[in-house]
Amino acid sequence: MIQVSVVGASGYTGVELIKILLKHPQVNIASLTTRSQEPVSLEKLVPSLPKHSGLRLETFSLRKVASNSDVIFLALPHTQAMDLAHDFYRAGKIVIDLSADFRIQRHKLYEVWYGHKHTRKELLEDAVYGLPEAYREQIKKAQLVANPGCYATSLLLALQPALEQKLIEIDSIVADSKSGVSGAGRKLSDATHFCNVDENFSAYKVNQHQHIPEVEANLEKFAGKPVPLTFVPHLLPLERGILSTLYVNKKKGVTAGRVRQAYLEAFQNEPFVRVRPEGEFPAIKDVAYTNFCDLGIWTSDRSNWVIIISVIDNLLKGASGQAVQNMNIRCGFDETEGLL
Amino acid sequence: MIQVSVVGASGYTGVELIKILLKHPQVNIASLTTRSQEPVSLEKLVPSLPKHSGLRLETFSLRKVASNSDVIFLALPHTQAMDLAHDFYRAGKIVIDLSADFRIQRHKLYEVWYGHKHTRKELLEDAVYGLPEAYREQIKKAQLVANPGCYATSLLLALQPALEQKLIEIDSIVADSKSGVSGAGRKLSDATHFCNVDENFSAYKVNQHQHIPEVEANLEKFAGKPVPLTFVPHLLPLERGILSTLYVNKKKGVTAGRVRQAYLEAFQNEPFVRVRPEGEFPAIKDVAYTNFCDLGIWTSDRSNWVIIISVIDNLLKGASGQAVQNMNIRCGFDETEGLL
Amino acid sequence: MIQVSVVGASGYTGVELIKILLKHPQVNIASLTTRSQEPVSLEKLVPSLPKHSGLRLETFSLRKVASNSDVIFLALPHTQAMDLAHDFYRAGKIVIDLSADFRIQRHKLYEVWYGHKHTRKELLEDAVYGLPEAYREQIKKAQLVANPGCYATSLLLALQPALEQKLIEIDSIVADSKSGVSGAGRKLSDATHFCNVDENFSAYKVNQHQHIPEVEANLEKFAGKPVPLTFVPHLLPLERGILSTLYVNKKKGVTAGRVRQAYLEAFQNEPFVRVRPEGEFPAIKDVAYTNFCDLGIWTSDRSNWVIIISVIDNLLKGASGQAVQNMNIRCGFDETEGLL
Amino acid sequence: MIQVSVVGASGYTGVELIKILLKHPQVNIASLTTRSQEPVSLEKLVPSLPKHSGLRLETFSLRKVASNSDVIFLALPHTQAMDLAHDFYRAGKIVIDLSADFRIQRHKLYEVWYGHKHTRKELLEDAVYGLPEAYREQIKKAQLVANPGCYATSLLLALQPALEQKLIEIDSIVADSKSGVSGAGRKLSDATHFCNVDENFSAYKVNQHQHIPEVEANLEKFAGKPVPLTFVPHLLPLERGILSTLYVNKKKGVTAGRVRQAYLEAFQNEPFVRVRPEGEFPAIKDVAYTNFCDLGIWTSDRSNWVIIISVIDNLLKGASGQAVQNMNIRCGFDETEGLL
Repeated sequence: MIQVSVVGASGYTGVELIKILLKHPQVNIASLTTRSQEPVSLEKLVPSLPKHSGLRLETFSLRKVASNSDVIFLALPHTQAMDLAHDFYRAGKIVIDLSADFRIQRHKLYEVWYGHKHTRKELLEDAVYGLPEAYREQIKKAQLVANPGCYATSLLLALQPALEQKLIEIDSIVADSKSGVSGAGRKLSDATHFCNVDENFSAYKVNQHQHIPEVEANLEKFAGKPVPLTFVPHLLPLERGILSTLYVNKKKGVTAGRVRQAYLEAFQNEPFVRVRPEGEFPAIKDVAYTNFCDLGIWTSDRSNWVIIISVIDNLLKGASGQAVQNMNIRCGFDETEGLL
Repeated sequence: MIQVSVVGASGYTGVELIKILLKHPQVNIASLTTRSQEPVSLEKLVPSLPKHSGLRLETFSLRKVASNSDVIFLALPHTQAMDLAHDFYRAGKIVIDLSADFRIQRHKLYEVWYGHKHTRKELLEDAVYGLPEAYREQIKKAQLVANPGCYATSLLLALQPALEQKLIEIDSIVADSKSGVSGAGRKLSDATHFCNVDENFSAYKVNQHQHIPEVEANLEKFAGKPVPLTFVPHLLPLERGILSTLYVNKKKGVTAGRVRQAYLEAFQNEPFVRVRPEGEFPAIKDVAYTNFCDLGIWTSDRSNWVIIISVIDNLLKGASGQAVQNMNIRCGFDETEGLL
Repeated sequence: MIQVSVVGASGYTGVELIKILLKHPQVNIASLTTRSQEPVSLEKLVPSLPKHSGLRLETFSLRKVASNSDVIFLALPHTQAMDLAHDFYRAGKIVIDLSADFRIQRHKLYEVWYGHKHTRKELLEDAVYGLPEAYREQIKKAQLVANPGCYATSLLLALQPALEQKLIEIDSIVADSKSGVSGAGRKLSDATHFCNVDENFSAYKVNQHQHIPEVEANLEKFAGKPVPLTFVPHLLPLERGILSTLYVNKKKGVTAGRVRQAYLEAFQNEPFVRVRPEGEFPAIKDVAYTNFCDLGIWTSDRSNWVIIISVIDNLLKGASGQAVQNMNIRCGFDETEGLL
Repeated sequence: MIQVSVVGASGYTGVELIKILLKHPQVNIASLTTRSQEPVSLEKLVPSLPKHSGLRLETFSLRKVASNSDVIFLALPHTQAMDLAHDFYRAGKIVIDLSADFRIQRHKLYEVWYGHKHTRKELLEDAVYGLPEAYREQIKKAQLVANPGCYATSLLLALQPALEQKLIEIDSIVADSKSGVSGAGRKLSDATHFCNVDENFSAYKVNQHQHIPEVEANLEKFAGKPVPLTFVPHLLPLERGILSTLYVNKKKGVTAGRVRQAYLEAFQNEPFVRVRPEGEFPAIKDVAYTNFCDLGIWTSDRSNWVIIISVIDNLLKGASGQAVQNMNIRCGFDETEGLL
């Protein structure tokens, strides 16, 4: 039984974390904190809470959280996590950071894309990118896990086998992603007003979304050389889920069968990635409210295109579920504990 | 004042046609017919109908429609329009066919993609593909107009200037389209059950949608040589609208400015195509319930990719609005009559 | 041809007004104004606008609007309309006010429910409540029309015949209303964040909505004595439309047939109220994007309950459509001009 | 550890049952059966299923299910459960029937409302109505549990304290309910086509829904005398959840405080009913995906009306969750096992 805290527990990802941790048999919740000045009853945020739980979010106290926790999840906005991560790291705690602050190892790239100076760049090389399917061994020993972005998770899992097996041309990668609105967080904006989302659909940040550098850096690790990404995210009129459609060119001589085989083998023993049989493609509802990433692959010996469709729940495999998966790996629990 | 009839008036596109024609100052509605055995009150189908209009859909009679109409719109399922189109054509009527039956000039291609023998292939070469932005002059003289498919309209308008001006590589075209549910028609199916669409999103007919040959044939006309299309349609949880995101490679030496200029010039005088300023991209709600196609273009001198986003209302510019636009052109009316 | 202006043209009701007025054959748009400091292109607000219309919203100028307009629509938030209404009224203009500021003749009641002092109470007795089905003759001569609230419209039309014919007990009236989100306006709030509305449904302002006094005052006029209203509004996960379900007790001895007859007769010649045949009940989609109010009535000789279901588009018959209907009446145009 | 089977496992309620039972620590799933002729993989129906579970729905075999099960859930359409319930009952099994077949003790009433002869009326008096908050002691000993309807659950819990404490007039009860589409089941119909539900809202079965007799029979038990119900259900454009708004008259002399106190006391120790503090009202999202029923109560010493708002998840507290709650009670497990 380990002691676990969530800092920034009132956002969408914080609430999902709490839901998972409350049912996780190996953890005890030490602290749940909010930036609000006053304690917040958890009942408003977690409708499934048992009656009279009395659980509350408390005003954040570094000293208290550091003293009562073994593992600390940071569910804070980008730029607000880096200093706290540093403090807990220095106090010897395991930190799982759901923000983008430690995902990009080159701090200058971070500063360009996030428009904010990185004040703790000395920690960047200790941070492990928390994509278990790619970096499980490092995660087992990490003290600071940079939990991947939601779009990044959906794209990296879709491309990892093809790049690692060198089956595709690296300059032809197009990723067309569609996300539910919870990805934009709880903050109010015209973009999330019901009347602007309902019965509507649009692209945004066309080829300039801030997840691009995080994806490209990991694609480069898979391929062994730089891989440019063309990426357009879109906003779906629904709450949860991401579907990404990826278009890549097979290398000459690569058969359809070999492509399919690469995916089946790569994910055969992965507990949270499911590859669909030929001719089947996953829908968002197939993974909503789960930690799964489902993949469907179109490939043909008569075409040099490969089309990969990837779906996740952006709040689970794309955020809080994956964060718990990382904790499970790091703490030596069954990797699926609390997640099935 | 011309006499106009709609055959197959109870489907989604039929109803949209009726709404437009009822307000069109130059037409009189001669007949509205349905395949049902009994007359159907129009009030159930057209909520905006004035009280006590008394308008009804009548059981179809070839003789009656042929005798009382100058222009006949066929809003029938694919394969059911070809024989009727033939009959009205032989009777000297102007026929605007909203089905796919005369869109593909090579009847063998039609037969492969629609799985049905073409019984009136002798008419195929007289049929004009009803995309006004590309074929306005032919439409002016056409007796049989093959009204384009909804996906096809959204893709062809997005690609026409780039191909005609030879600005892009023809083997790199990826089209990722997302459509509202009305595109699937009124027929019942698991795919259109509310609980399967709501909060869901999925691809279907991955790279094998039946609009592909119709698009490729017209792309070939724009480019002067065969253009292969990679195309994945998706189903959005909303009623009306298509957004297509297209990814193409610029030819070497083509500047971003030249690409943008090509689109601005091509559509400057088009009443129903609007090109957005640099950095702006259209949303489905920008064109829902209108006959517009709006285009947004991402291009950069530092990238060889061009991204084009195209939105239409699938029932209007993608079907019934465009059909009326074709009628306006053919009959010498102002092209926007009834459509603004 | 009259000169018409809209003050506060960028809100949802302002935009709907503009859409109607642009197609209205008897009016010329003189000014469209916004509270913003800078002119706003109308293209963003009205997607159906013809290309190159060049129409803009201008910064408000009392002098300019007063000098160039015959009729002025005020589409401003409550409490912001009263002084402007006064100024235009004193300048001899016809004012149609879509806010609540002149709907409640007893200013103290207004001040209690809206929490704001009424600074122009001397105008209250000149204001005519703009419900054409009840006050058409007064509207013909009104210089200041207080356009009814959306909920109020849906409830008053549902009750008018029964109360005027004294068919129901006045102390048994229950009104359960459900409204789309556009009723809450464009302002950002937690209540209109997509993730709080989507897949959700809730009551609000239970028995304390600010339309209650406006409804009760008019019910009293219909019945000839005070009529208390029990009223719960709810928020639907959709954009446009109100459905109200009303539960009332028939007076002893009143037959079901007489109830139904009262509704049929009352609205027989009304262009925008449609009473459904026995056993049929209207849905929101039957009136969305129209100026109609549709009514369905359940009544039985074996029950003393009468159930009335009333649907409107909250932005049209519940706001801007009705405002134009009032203008048509006041200016001697055909009452349906621009609205069918 | 008991052996449990679900007959009719492919419908919405069957699937929800499976999800709960798979995680229930005290049960082993013996059989999951479908009316289909061929086995169905569970993976399509339960997206959250662990990989490689291999679970399937099998063609129904009475003998097999009877021999391998202690408790049998019937998740079949009305009229199809009665004979099977009889067979399993005679075989000494515990039967929890989610259909309406044993909810109405007077078989003639059943036959009128369901239009079907009751072939097993001899079992009706042994059946216990499975509303734990009202009949927990009987459920503990029941061999046949008639699991309540979804609307019935939402209405009965809202009225039980007021009627048992004789606080309200029994002839003034109005219930206005709004349900998500999953309540209509998986069957295809115009009513559940996405385009007919989306952006729409309507009443149906106005004052003639088949849950009325089941509710009235239990209200009579609460009140000690017949209680007539006025009830209008409506269809919401969302998947899961029911919100019911009830309007009743307080008896003379009953204070607001006493009403509120009655609810607080009645449900204080109930694990799945939560009464909101004064001035707060529950929304559907507060209980979606949970087994809770949340209640909000409006009452005032200045009004004789009491308004009660009740929300449940129609598939859980309104069906499968409550069925498991009944199993827990019957089998002596903790009542919340598998449900929190």
